[in-house]
Amino acid sequence: MSDVPHGCQEKLAAMRLEIDALDRQIVDLLARRQHQVEDVVALKKAHNLPVYHPAREEDLISARRDQAKAAGLCPDYIEEIYRIIMRRSRVTQAGHMAGKAVRPGATVLIVGGTGEMGRYFADWFTGAGYLVRSMGSRDWDRAALLCEGIDLCLISVTIDKTPEVIRKIAPYLPAHAVLADLTSIKKLPLQAMLDAHPGPVVGLHPLFGPTTSTLDKQIVVATPGRDENACRWVIDQFSLWGAVIVRSTREEHDKIMEYVQSLRHFATFAFGQFLAAKKVPLARTLEFSSPIYRLEMGMVGRLFAQDAGLYAEIIFATPERRAMLKDYIQSVSQNLAMLEKGDKDGFKAQFQKIAEWFGPFGEQAIRESSFLIDKLIERF
Amino acid sequence: MSDVPHGCQEKLAAMRLEIDALDRQIVDLLARRQHQVEDVVALKKAHNLPVYHPAREEDLISARRDQAKAAGLCPDYIEEIYRIIMRRSRVTQAGHMAGKAVRPGATVLIVGGTGEMGRYFADWFTGAGYLVRSMGSRDWDRAALLCEGIDLCLISVTIDKTPEVIRKIAPYLPAHAVLADLTSIKKLPLQAMLDAHPGPVVGLHPLFGPTTSTLDKQIVVATPGRDENACRWVIDQFSLWGAVIVRSTREEHDKIMEYVQSLRHFATFAFGQFLAAKKVPLARTLEFSSPIYRLEMGMVGRLFAQDAGLYAEIIFATPERRAMLKDYIQSVSQNLAMLEKGDKDGFKAQFQKIAEWFGPFGEQAIRESSFLIDKLIERF
Repeated sequence: MSDVPHGCQEKLAAMRLEIDALDRQIVDLLARRQHQVEDVVALKKAHNLPVYHPAREEDLISARRDQAKAAGLCPDYIEEIYRIIMRRSRVTQAGHMAGKAVRPGATVLIVGGTGEMGRYFADWFTGAGYLVRSMGSRDWDRAALLCEGIDLCLISVTIDKTPEVIRKIAPYLPAHAVLADLTSIKKLPLQAMLDAHPGPVVGLHPLFGPTTSTLDKQIVVATPGRDENACRWVIDQFSLWGAVIVRSTREEHDKIMEYVQSLRHFATFAFGQFLAAKKVPLARTLEFSSPIYRLEMGMVGRLFAQDAGLYAEIIFATPERRAMLKDYIQSVSQNLAMLEKGDKDGFKAQFQKIAEWFGPFGEQAIRESSFLIDKLIERF
Repeated sequence: MSDVPHGCQEKLAAMRLEIDALDRQIVDLLARRQHQVEDVVALKKAHNLPVYHPAREEDLISARRDQAKAAGLCPDYIEEIYRIIMRRSRVTQAGHMAGKAVRPGATVLIVGGTGEMGRYFADWFTGAGYLVRSMGSRDWDRAALLCEGIDLCLISVTIDKTPEVIRKIAPYLPAHAVLADLTSIKKLPLQAMLDAHPGPVVGLHPLFGPTTSTLDKQIVVATPGRDENACRWVIDQFSLWGAVIVRSTREEHDKIMEYVQSLRHFATFAFGQFLAAKKVPLARTLEFSSPIYRLEMGMVGRLFAQDAGLYAEIIFATPERRAMLKDYIQSVSQNLAMLEKGDKDGFKAQFQKIAEWFGPFGEQAIRESSFLIDKLIERF
């Protein structure tokens, strides 16, 4: 660099020192942030609050993106850095918790333990050092023996059989044993458990299936029934495995699940139903497909690769669900006139109203799904 | 969270404010750092010094790792962040070099070049070294001038205006110029182009929107019109940008797009329409959501964050599309009786038949979407 004027070299050196000083401050702030996060985690643990908070993470990302834009920085760049910062806190928290039991050596009976979901949780409890007993539909003559001295009875049968199984098993349970179910509705099973068992009761709804390899950030909804203190260790065990516990009432849970499960699956079913009826050339449409269409078709194909009975239970679970789905069909049908008239303006007016209702979620959805599309492109 | 003491909630809120304050400072410092780097790059360029300096990067990483260790942070974590910070500076510098031209210096006129998609492709062509002219709806009095000596005329207006714009612009085109459109239907525009322009004609349909940051592995459908050899450089240019070219006839294209676009977007629209009508508590459902629900809601939210007019065009583009959508509404409605009767067995029988029709695609969809769900979990 002998051809460089001396003044310029000095100036460059000074600018670099300035950057070094900024970097020292950045790392110093990151350290202070990490310690603050550790304090939050400690406080949350002391009060048994869920550690991970997806909504707060998205708020935080949005705020930092806005700040970046205002400061002339690329918001994606700042988001990339903050994804690492937030993953770090989660890793730190989860690292020292895996595979431990909240109540080592306690005995867990899984009723329906020979089904897919039952076996799945049997593995998790066994792995954490619990004594696990499984009970199938042919084991009722051994029910008394299987229930002897258990600390938790987990009902893992299909929705339609759950109330009956609860009534049948309850008389065998020790008074102190926690009774919990895993079905995707909560009003009926919780009431059945409260009626049949005088001891601690909690309704659980794991929002994932038995193909999920890690519980990290998977959701378990917990609806309290009776004696929350006595039930806490069960909920804590799911937290310890990395699951996020969402507390809810049975009424709120069932209302929200109408949409999150029943509507969504029914809409997907109806979409696949139409593709099949029209004999759409699936393979060729995939050749014509943008990554996002591939992703959407994947959601449809995924449904039909799973168990028909499971989806029948989810969709037909309650009269409320069926009534809501009939409303949905009405709602879809109301567009007939618009299509017949070719009423683009009517469509646009409705679209705008719905977009307003979605609010900032739309932008966030673009970011999230764009990220996934990039991943899909990277891989396929 | 009614079981949490009030003081604890307050303390948590205060701690979060503290974290927010730290985050603001961090982003502020990152912005100051970026500006400082830009000054360094400018100074280096002025003196023809090499911009990228690997040795300095490694020194910097080492210093930050040491600082992290001293502050009780994981050095790998800080290195991960600093790799992003430094990649950013390199990307900023390299940004204006990307893009080679198949026919450097050729002139491209984009009719509708002031619209979103038009501007998007204007940027790509400009970036690759083409001379780009943009024409908006107020530029018709300058049409002759704008068309003088052009090599490609790209029609980028909405579907409903495309045939008319083609007829108006064609008389001004040089005989050798390639005429191409970008609409999502191909029969009508291609016929209009063939009728109006005696030179090379090709129909193009890019299966992505203007928010796509890379063309890598994105699909462009090409439907031949006239003089394929003369059109080749245009198609090759899209290939060079990384797009995958799918060749099709206009008839096949339009048939497949009924499903890939019109049906899919209409179904998503109808889903969002119902959520809005029912005032579903969106934020709370997301708290209850498994990653896959989040992904599916993302698809819905994504639609409504985009342009209403664009979707109106796609959905209402042709009488065939509207007829197909009416069939779809009929198909969804046929499930009313099943819901009214609570006919689970009928549902299961239909489900099985559809699953058979999907065939091996279902398993593939499970694999693909499971991969994406893992990515989603990693990130969110």
